Amino acid sequence: MTREQLVQQIRDKESFLCVGLDSDLSRIPQHLMSAQDPVFEFNKAIIDATKDHCVAYKPNIAFYESLGSKGWDSLGKTIDYIPDTHFTIADAKRGDIGNTSRQYAKTFFETFAFDSITVAPYMGIDSVSPFLEYDNKWVILLALTSNKGSEDFQHHGAEPLFEQVIIKSQEWGDPSNLMYVVGATHPESFARIRELAPEHFYLVPGVGAQGGSVSTVCKYGKNEDLGMLINSSRGIIFSSTGEDFAVEAKKSAKRLHDQMREQF
Amino acid sequence: MTREQLVQQIRDKESFLCVGLDSDLSRIPQHLMSAQDPVFEFNKAIIDATKDHCVAYKPNIAFYESLGSKGWDSLGKTIDYIPDTHFTIADAKRGDIGNTSRQYAKTFFETFAFDSITVAPYMGIDSVSPFLEYDNKWVILLALTSNKGSEDFQHHGAEPLFEQVIIKSQEWGDPSNLMYVVGATHPESFARIRELAPEHFYLVPGVGAQGGSVSTVCKYGKNEDLGMLINSSRGIIFSSTGEDFAVEAKKSAKRLHDQMREQF
Repeated sequence: MTREQLVQQIRDKESFLCVGLDSDLSRIPQHLMSAQDPVFEFNKAIIDATKDHCVAYKPNIAFYESLGSKGWDSLGKTIDYIPDTHFTIADAKRGDIGNTSRQYAKTFFETFAFDSITVAPYMGIDSVSPFLEYDNKWVILLALTSNKGSEDFQHHGAEPLFEQVIIKSQEWGDPSNLMYVVGATHPESFARIRELAPEHFYLVPGVGAQGGSVSTVCKYGKNEDLGMLINSSRGIIFSSTGEDFAVEAKKSAKRLHDQMREQF
Repeated sequence: MTREQLVQQIRDKESFLCVGLDSDLSRIPQHLMSAQDPVFEFNKAIIDATKDHCVAYKPNIAFYESLGSKGWDSLGKTIDYIPDTHFTIADAKRGDIGNTSRQYAKTFFETFAFDSITVAPYMGIDSVSPFLEYDNKWVILLALTSNKGSEDFQHHGAEPLFEQVIIKSQEWGDPSNLMYVVGATHPESFARIRELAPEHFYLVPGVGAQGGSVSTVCKYGKNEDLGMLINSSRGIIFSSTGEDFAVEAKKSAKRLHDQMREQF
């Protein structure tokens, strides 16, 4: 998907919501467990229920991978089921030497036709650039993450490491193929990050369960094209563990969508 | 596998060789391509040919993952085929927030019974610690990698980031469950790293094709328990593209084993 298509979809819908498909088999409603592929049945219902409120879906690859080859089948069916209008993110946090990152790119951009993948920056240029060689595919590079452990290394150095990641990686990609992960739990950092990367999109986890709010994030992080995808995973997909799980997921997605409309 | 078992195996064999199973389908000898599972047939022959010369096997997960669910089946069969005497490394470079790293740990330590996994440190403590909660399982944390991109961020800061990773992570694990990736292409850094982590094992890529040598790495990196696993992937498994691929792989493994014997 091109940047123009993504921006157009955000404007048309007045939404920049990404629904995280962290579809943990152990948390899927009991009545789906007799289905041939409970994970896919769950995702299908969630996608049907939320697609009018979001512009992107982000399967968290760990939850599929942990089921072995069956999980990869569920992932494939899920990607095929997501409407073409929606931006897809493989939340995989991959990154390795060049020939290996090239294989990961093949996995997520060819074997599975994702629009983008999250990548860890630790190994530098040759771990990231193979993902940037595909037309209209995106790297979403970890910059400042939402978790507690973000304090361990991401602030290392007089010029914090996450700033260096944002500065350096702009030599490798541009706002048409490179986004950054910036956690909603660091609203105070958004203004500084916008100085460093004014045009780029950010993927923002940490709204809801982890404590960030849509309005605070937008106050510091919004740009002319909106410039953000705010993700919610568990806060939407596990809104109920009963037979009404999809209805409740829709309500949770709509609640965030309503907050987002105020930003247009 | 415990540290004692690993050290005993290294002493018994006078080898600290790890064979990297970067079993790229596009490079597998033509005559195997008609097999039902060419990747597994290839790995089986490589394991049979090299097991007397090495103490560890390291499947590079990218090459399996890129084949979708079939690749994960090949990986499962490969892990089952590796003798219990050998230490197994999932070269996966994973790392994510706590609940997600927990799923990755489940994948590689339960769904597939690897002894260890390579982990990227960027996201800090909660991305690493779920892997350390398993008895006799290991984290192999990226510290100073062998690739060109290692220059981009790993030296960031007055106290280089890779040193900070080694120092900080010793609060999370110890020499019985934590190793570090240290590339053979940085022999000058081994002495400093040994000061910081005298007892830990290092997984050392970059010998052979990438330019590092066994004797130089040992000169600066060896400790009382030997303390290193030196990996070779393409330099062993793709020694020949013909029907003699396993015979040639054995010769390449033996060549490194002979160099290693001199260290005992």
